[in-house]
Amino acid sequence: MNKQKRFAVILAGCGVFDGAEIHEATLTLLAIAQAGGSYECFAPDKEQAQVINHMTGKLMNEERNVMVESARITRGKIKPLYLFEPEKFDAVIFPGGFGVAKNLCTLAFEGSDCTVDPEVELAVIASVEASIPIGALCIAPALIVKILPGADVTIGRDPETVRTIEKMGGTHHETDHAEVIVDSKYKLVTSPCYMLDAHILQIARGTQNVVNELIGLM
Amino acid sequence: MNKQKRFAVILAGCGVFDGAEIHEATLTLLAIAQAGGSYECFAPDKEQAQVINHMTGKLMNEERNVMVESARITRGKIKPLYLFEPEKFDAVIFPGGFGVAKNLCTLAFEGSDCTVDPEVELAVIASVEASIPIGALCIAPALIVKILPGADVTIGRDPETVRTIEKMGGTHHETDHAEVIVDSKYKLVTSPCYMLDAHILQIARGTQNVVNELIGLM
Repeated sequence: MNKQKRFAVILAGCGVFDGAEIHEATLTLLAIAQAGGSYECFAPDKEQAQVINHMTGKLMNEERNVMVESARITRGKIKPLYLFEPEKFDAVIFPGGFGVAKNLCTLAFEGSDCTVDPEVELAVIASVEASIPIGALCIAPALIVKILPGADVTIGRDPETVRTIEKMGGTHHETDHAEVIVDSKYKLVTSPCYMLDAHILQIARGTQNVVNELIGLM
Repeated sequence: MNKQKRFAVILAGCGVFDGAEIHEATLTLLAIAQAGGSYECFAPDKEQAQVINHMTGKLMNEERNVMVESARITRGKIKPLYLFEPEKFDAVIFPGGFGVAKNLCTLAFEGSDCTVDPEVELAVIASVEASIPIGALCIAPALIVKILPGADVTIGRDPETVRTIEKMGGTHHETDHAEVIVDSKYKLVTSPCYMLDAHILQIARGTQNVVNELIGLM
């Protein structure tokens, strides 16, 4: 019998406009479980860049912590990102949401000139060095491209984000719902999810496809 | 061809300890989509009873709005509960989470002597009068029992909650993971979900079973 595959899931808060996209995060956990895997979740222990009212889209005058809010998605079980050790896992996945572009890097504010959170950068580089595959959903591939030079990725087909990815040295491949792009040099698997105008069924298929491709790369 | 079934989903915030349980809510939306249905989400537009740090379980000195936080789960698309009209839907579902026992009623604080939010009570009574079936997951059946005298429900097998349900005049039926109890007099379908020590796969099966039973009652 195969050993159970262990996935690390790195979250960026709780909610599409300032944190991790909740459907992508939840359906990533479900896809891992459906594939017979186990998961542990991590998030940076720091203040969110913003708090957004998800009904109005407006800024709220509040402070929230990325890890504490991410714990809402994981029912309390989460660890600070600096405790992530790639050698204890068979793969790592970044669900999407604006939190990736606001809390894990500064893409939402500075575009291709963005900087990446040092703990996130270390987690990605250490995963490549440990040769475990990396999954990135939705906007997360843009973050990965900033860290891994010349990575092949997809974010669907949004022209502005495609240009940003190319400016950062990545190679973009257009995809439709639930399709994945595999970069074998980095063992990197990406899928557009809600970067396309998607339905929750398409997100479920996208997360399943990413998890299955990651297992194939282990 | 059958007409697409329209589901209303009533949320109690965003996060298991002070709002709607995120997996139950997300997987309810997925189960509806998998069954070919459509959904609209509603939540009461009022302050949460509490804000809980989901890592520590401790109270936070903050105020959050039930509807605004629920919108995190729905990617912004949500309506105030007073706009819910049962005649526009084929079924209504209440996912669980402590938010049901804290924001939709006062069960978490007052047990069997709890009071129910007037908009929630109206939504449930109007649904019964309109003869549309009602689904209730996790702790939500305890709320329903307070409104519908003598309802047959399950919350799994937690002895204290079972006693509370019986004190409120409900009839409890013990269930295992993903099992459902159907009360045909009220067209009420309940399933324990995270009231048992469940795995996300079991939540996915539970929500599918509830949605399918509801469709059978339409």
